[in-house]
Amino acid sequence: MLKGKMLIAHGGGPTPVINTSLLGAIEEAKKHDCIEQILAARHGVEGLLDENFIDLGKEDEEKIQLLRYTPASAIGSCRRKLQEEDYPLILEVFKKHNIRYFFYNGGNDSMDSCNKISILAEKSGYDMKVIGIPKTIDNDLVATDNCPGFASAARYIAECVKELAQDAHSLPIHVLVVEVMGRNAGWLAASAELAKDDDNRGPHLIYLPEIPLDEEKFLADVKKVNDKLGYALVVASEGLVDKEGNPVADSGIVDGFGHVVAGGIGEYLSKLITDKLGIKSRSEKPGLLARNAIKYRSDVDIKEAYDVGAYAVKSAAGGETGFMVAIKRLEGKEYDYSLALEPLNNVANYEKKFPLEWINEEKNGVTKEFVDYCKPLIGGDLPKFTVFEK
Amino acid sequence: MLKGKMLIAHGGGPTPVINTSLLGAIEEAKKHDCIEQILAARHGVEGLLDENFIDLGKEDEEKIQLLRYTPASAIGSCRRKLQEEDYPLILEVFKKHNIRYFFYNGGNDSMDSCNKISILAEKSGYDMKVIGIPKTIDNDLVATDNCPGFASAARYIAECVKELAQDAHSLPIHVLVVEVMGRNAGWLAASAELAKDDDNRGPHLIYLPEIPLDEEKFLADVKKVNDKLGYALVVASEGLVDKEGNPVADSGIVDGFGHVVAGGIGEYLSKLITDKLGIKSRSEKPGLLARNAIKYRSDVDIKEAYDVGAYAVKSAAGGETGFMVAIKRLEGKEYDYSLALEPLNNVANYEKKFPLEWINEEKNGVTKEFVDYCKPLIGGDLPKFTVFEK
Repeated sequence: MLKGKMLIAHGGGPTPVINTSLLGAIEEAKKHDCIEQILAARHGVEGLLDENFIDLGKEDEEKIQLLRYTPASAIGSCRRKLQEEDYPLILEVFKKHNIRYFFYNGGNDSMDSCNKISILAEKSGYDMKVIGIPKTIDNDLVATDNCPGFASAARYIAECVKELAQDAHSLPIHVLVVEVMGRNAGWLAASAELAKDDDNRGPHLIYLPEIPLDEEKFLADVKKVNDKLGYALVVASEGLVDKEGNPVADSGIVDGFGHVVAGGIGEYLSKLITDKLGIKSRSEKPGLLARNAIKYRSDVDIKEAYDVGAYAVKSAAGGETGFMVAIKRLEGKEYDYSLALEPLNNVANYEKKFPLEWINEEKNGVTKEFVDYCKPLIGGDLPKFTVFEK
Repeated sequence: MLKGKMLIAHGGGPTPVINTSLLGAIEEAKKHDCIEQILAARHGVEGLLDENFIDLGKEDEEKIQLLRYTPASAIGSCRRKLQEEDYPLILEVFKKHNIRYFFYNGGNDSMDSCNKISILAEKSGYDMKVIGIPKTIDNDLVATDNCPGFASAARYIAECVKELAQDAHSLPIHVLVVEVMGRNAGWLAASAELAKDDDNRGPHLIYLPEIPLDEEKFLADVKKVNDKLGYALVVASEGLVDKEGNPVADSGIVDGFGHVVAGGIGEYLSKLITDKLGIKSRSEKPGLLARNAIKYRSDVDIKEAYDVGAYAVKSAAGGETGFMVAIKRLEGKEYDYSLALEPLNNVANYEKKFPLEWINEEKNGVTKEFVDYCKPLIGGDLPKFTVFEK
């Protein structure tokens, strides 16, 4: 039995359930004698490099249980991309503190770092078990059916878009454009489709970053809906690109991983509609609320998030290393899943784009296949609203 | 006893509890034999002019009860400003349908229309009882302690800002600017103050439209917070004006009442921060969600909204006319209120601005007096989040 301390860290943007995965990891760790201390790195790899740790075993149980209802990252996160020269330093920190179990909760970039740490430990003969815990509202990690955090964010978008559709329908004076997060992946914007009822209140048009935006076609789409209904509800992914692959609207900001941060597509498109069509338009940008709104969490997501955290620790305690925990959807009428280990190598440099065949022919919506995929994840039907029929 | 039909209409933007006021009015009306039929005008005064009515008495009880959980306006609303020539037509419609009880639920503009209708009916000798039901998330109606809808929207803003503060604190890489509705009145933006804990996570700076924005001072404020914490949470009212009284950012849209629709201040300020200070910044704009997010409603607001709807009908059935229902705060430790009738004339052409003495000396926040006023309205404490102290 490999005895030593455990260290857990968060990388990148939080999700509404990232702290639930942390809770799962903590509670599992307490069951294993090989884990002598439960540490968290404050602000991800920054805390790791600075030896800035939180001793979670010493925290009040009340605080630990409250993790389930705490948005953002309770231990802090960062967007620092590890450089080659960081890795030897990190190894020194692991050795100095006798950290023998390392868990990195994150998305694509974090899994890449996690993989490099795992390889480094192995190459240098330092016996340490390294497991990645999946997380991203963007849902773009490969090898897992879905990424913890996505389902809650999807529910948030679906519920909010349904509420906005009710608003626009009840006061039909403008075209509403809702900007949705997700960077290069359309998963989250697509989830607005779940807001649709058979009453055609909206959303009417959904644009994903997987398809270059054709502004002429976009304006024609909007005009068609608005002519018919006197309003339209449009959902636009923040990462929409033009035919050359450049962001239609970007914030002018480059993040720590070198990604251009998208932003402003809602405002851009609503101005376009007003300018070119002469139709009143406004945009909403719930933005980071999609990854923080605790009230909209999916029960399925909460369970998955807890389970992947616990499974990571259990696997490491059982001697596994170099894997990411993955969710495998089981066959059957009711949604259910099992957990599995996927080599970090198979995950680290891949991105799961939204399937092109799940985008409709008009390129302004998604198909039933996406709804069948996503609906079981968001944890029950959306609220019903009173509709007085004409 | 004046026997006849009742007509209820909604004017302007909805609130999270406008349908609860409708429910209160319906349930009260059913108690009064003088009210022979309960009609709603579809899309406010447009439905009134077009004789487009919903017979609420014929709707399923299930649908009626669901009003309590339905966002936007279940009977529709509009932004049409009544013109002088509309009033005689309206009177004809009232007479034709033997409408003897008219209720208009709305804000400033709607109370003005309501007042004119009341005067017209009286002058022309048509016996009709007219009562205004207050509603606006902007909280800018005079003669009432607060406006139904405001407290729920305030809770929404407070909870969301608290969640965003948690996000920014946990991943301190940028200045977040949150744009908040409220047009010329700072009430709703001020409510972000309720998100503050003693941990200084935010909001750090709040800018209201009652004070012209000084961009140099604004940038100095932001820099100061960011230098200290590595991030900052800024709340900006959509209606911020410059020293000449012009909107700092407007959407280029003029609404049906002739108001310039504010919009884009969040994006504007975050670009200003990035350009002038070289600090990463992004903006969030939950926008219309503040008036639709059912999950964040305040219990106090729900009760008040129901009560003002019921009180309006009860008063009219008792022979009163030409009033708006007003909420009067009672003395005492626990928040409680009574309802009263205020002459529409005293309400119609006034606007309750945010008190200047409740804005702090630095003009970037609000005082304890505002918190004392607002906190009892939002219905209980905000959720607690886990904080692992350094």
